[in-house]
Amino acid sequence: MLNFNYHVPTKILFGKNKIEGLGTEIKNISDNILIVYGSSSIKKTGLYETVTSILKKSSISFKELSEISPNPRIKIVRKGVELCKKHSLKFILAVGGGSVIDTSKAIAAGACCNHDAWDFFLRKAQIKEALPIGTILTLSATGSEMNGFTVISNEETKEKLSFGSDLLRPQFSILDPTYTYTLPANQTSAGIADIFSHILESYFCKEKDTFLCDRIAEALMKTCIEFGPILLKEPDNYNARAQIMWASSLALNSLIASGKTGDWATHYIEHAISAVYDITHGFGLAIITPSWMEYVLSVDTVYKFVSYAENVWGVTGKDNMDIAKKGIEKTKEFFKALDLPLKLSDVGIDDKKLDEMTDKAVMFGPLGAFKILEKEDIFKILKSSL
Amino acid sequence: MLNFNYHVPTKILFGKNKIEGLGTEIKNISDNILIVYGSSSIKKTGLYETVTSILKKSSISFKELSEISPNPRIKIVRKGVELCKKHSLKFILAVGGGSVIDTSKAIAAGACCNHDAWDFFLRKAQIKEALPIGTILTLSATGSEMNGFTVISNEETKEKLSFGSDLLRPQFSILDPTYTYTLPANQTSAGIADIFSHILESYFCKEKDTFLCDRIAEALMKTCIEFGPILLKEPDNYNARAQIMWASSLALNSLIASGKTGDWATHYIEHAISAVYDITHGFGLAIITPSWMEYVLSVDTVYKFVSYAENVWGVTGKDNMDIAKKGIEKTKEFFKALDLPLKLSDVGIDDKKLDEMTDKAVMFGPLGAFKILEKEDIFKILKSSL
Repeated sequence: MLNFNYHVPTKILFGKNKIEGLGTEIKNISDNILIVYGSSSIKKTGLYETVTSILKKSSISFKELSEISPNPRIKIVRKGVELCKKHSLKFILAVGGGSVIDTSKAIAAGACCNHDAWDFFLRKAQIKEALPIGTILTLSATGSEMNGFTVISNEETKEKLSFGSDLLRPQFSILDPTYTYTLPANQTSAGIADIFSHILESYFCKEKDTFLCDRIAEALMKTCIEFGPILLKEPDNYNARAQIMWASSLALNSLIASGKTGDWATHYIEHAISAVYDITHGFGLAIITPSWMEYVLSVDTVYKFVSYAENVWGVTGKDNMDIAKKGIEKTKEFFKALDLPLKLSDVGIDDKKLDEMTDKAVMFGPLGAFKILEKEDIFKILKSSL
Repeated sequence: MLNFNYHVPTKILFGKNKIEGLGTEIKNISDNILIVYGSSSIKKTGLYETVTSILKKSSISFKELSEISPNPRIKIVRKGVELCKKHSLKFILAVGGGSVIDTSKAIAAGACCNHDAWDFFLRKAQIKEALPIGTILTLSATGSEMNGFTVISNEETKEKLSFGSDLLRPQFSILDPTYTYTLPANQTSAGIADIFSHILESYFCKEKDTFLCDRIAEALMKTCIEFGPILLKEPDNYNARAQIMWASSLALNSLIASGKTGDWATHYIEHAISAVYDITHGFGLAIITPSWMEYVLSVDTVYKFVSYAENVWGVTGKDNMDIAKKGIEKTKEFFKALDLPLKLSDVGIDDKKLDEMTDKAVMFGPLGAFKILEKEDIFKILKSSL
């Protein structure tokens, strides 16, 4: 097991009506805040009304930043930074899914420095300070509610980049599974693909002394497999929503990444795809994950695929390679059962911009750790995903 | 899934030589501290020298409290409280296993109030404040390094009681698996019994919508089963020590207890036994656990035993009851393979004080949640353990 630090101080308030604690949690930190949310959906569901009335009752004044899109843009981050600076806002409340939370984190970082927030993503600047943030989660997917990562897109440069710091871990996150009841089925599915991919990115590591983390990762994957399909039929199944919601937070809060080096090639390839084509992140992951698996499977890596196939899917087979391939097949079937796209052509992408996507994927160098991928490897993975 | 709050801010520094960070971690909090440790063993291993030289280099002044025994006593807690008050010590560094950490927590609570620290354990007083503590772990067992619980014995009243608060969670814990290399085999085994029991106490819950937590609990149990026996043969196997050490922290830090009601009858029964006979906690648990399992197994509870037997032990059988019983048998075999006692007679306890132990076990009322146990149930469990 590699040495590691583990520090996850985000307070989780999990369950029905946990929003009742919102006023107290914020009031402990600031009474002059920014609320960030996406579209009108939180107004339709009544969540906006609930949040703002709690804030008013708690004498917390607030400014608002809305219309955060999927694959959120640096442009709106800059707008948020400006708002925070102008009105001396000292806390950010993100009400939404990963895009809203990631935007809030980037604003939190940008509000405490004198340079452009995009510099953090370009690795031109290091974060030293950030505004505290809190979240009210409405979509189980990115795990952003319990970690320090943010992924933001730059429309002008067609880049989608990430950066992370423990300073960006939310102070608290309110996880009420009922807030995810009204999600369209394809967003639920895309979220599950994202969760499943986060687990795989940690699972497929180069270290071999990772027994405990691997077994926990398998527990999380089994949860996705058990409850994902249920949610497509019963979107308001509380227990299924709850299991998936807590799994999404645990999948990317450091728990299953401790003492090992994750791979993350699939995520970086997907970021390159959605930078160019603005597709849903979870769709891209469902497409690239099996292609990545097939590409990196070899006699050297088969042992981990066998562990995956046997422990997660209960697969048996005539030899290790057979078991491994059946595990990959099971992965495809799982995504298919969730009505997720399996090929780039399913989301309208053809072979015209393979080079551009490949270049973007390797802009900071080769990808991966379980298997290091050079530019030509990534091109081949993209091509095999067409 | 029941509603829950999850807040585990303890910073973990895990791995070889992580003690290098000690000075910085403490200096952030105070430069006038109390060190608490057990016997001379940390002097023999050189850990005492390492710790004190780091403190000196970091200009942190310290007082010492040593000779903390297993089943640590309230008497020495009072001595620690006095030291903290007299010298205005503002931080406590626990160097040792659960007994040392639990003592430090009780001191941390007692140093911030004007009544006797034992009042917390008698539930006569509620904690409002505590000194911050940090730990350097030398024995994987209690999970005290990442939770807010403390268990202390009162020799005069022959009571062994616990209390808990998030205020008592350590600020940081240094987990260096090499510090556990020199443990005697029976302490390693007793520690594993304790870890395994913590997992079972959460696992056997009355709620049925606990899929994710149960799978993670099974992951932790598999880790004990995989690496426990290895450690008896290879006490300096780094990976085995590391897997067990991290499992011990995760077994009782709220992770597998979230959204459910744990049982904890076995622990309370064991506390009653060791209050009267001062036996090693892990030995008592290894004895009581299978007796508890056999006693509570019924047509109503069999489903959970089947889950345990199949998922943890890979057992098959002719019907559910058969599978359940085989799972219990596997548990006994596991403890036996770790050279743990299986009967009260193995640790020199006969039937003379069954009533006294029973009375102590129910001093705050019936035990358990998976299955509620009245006084007569506990008497029978103790009797069947003779």
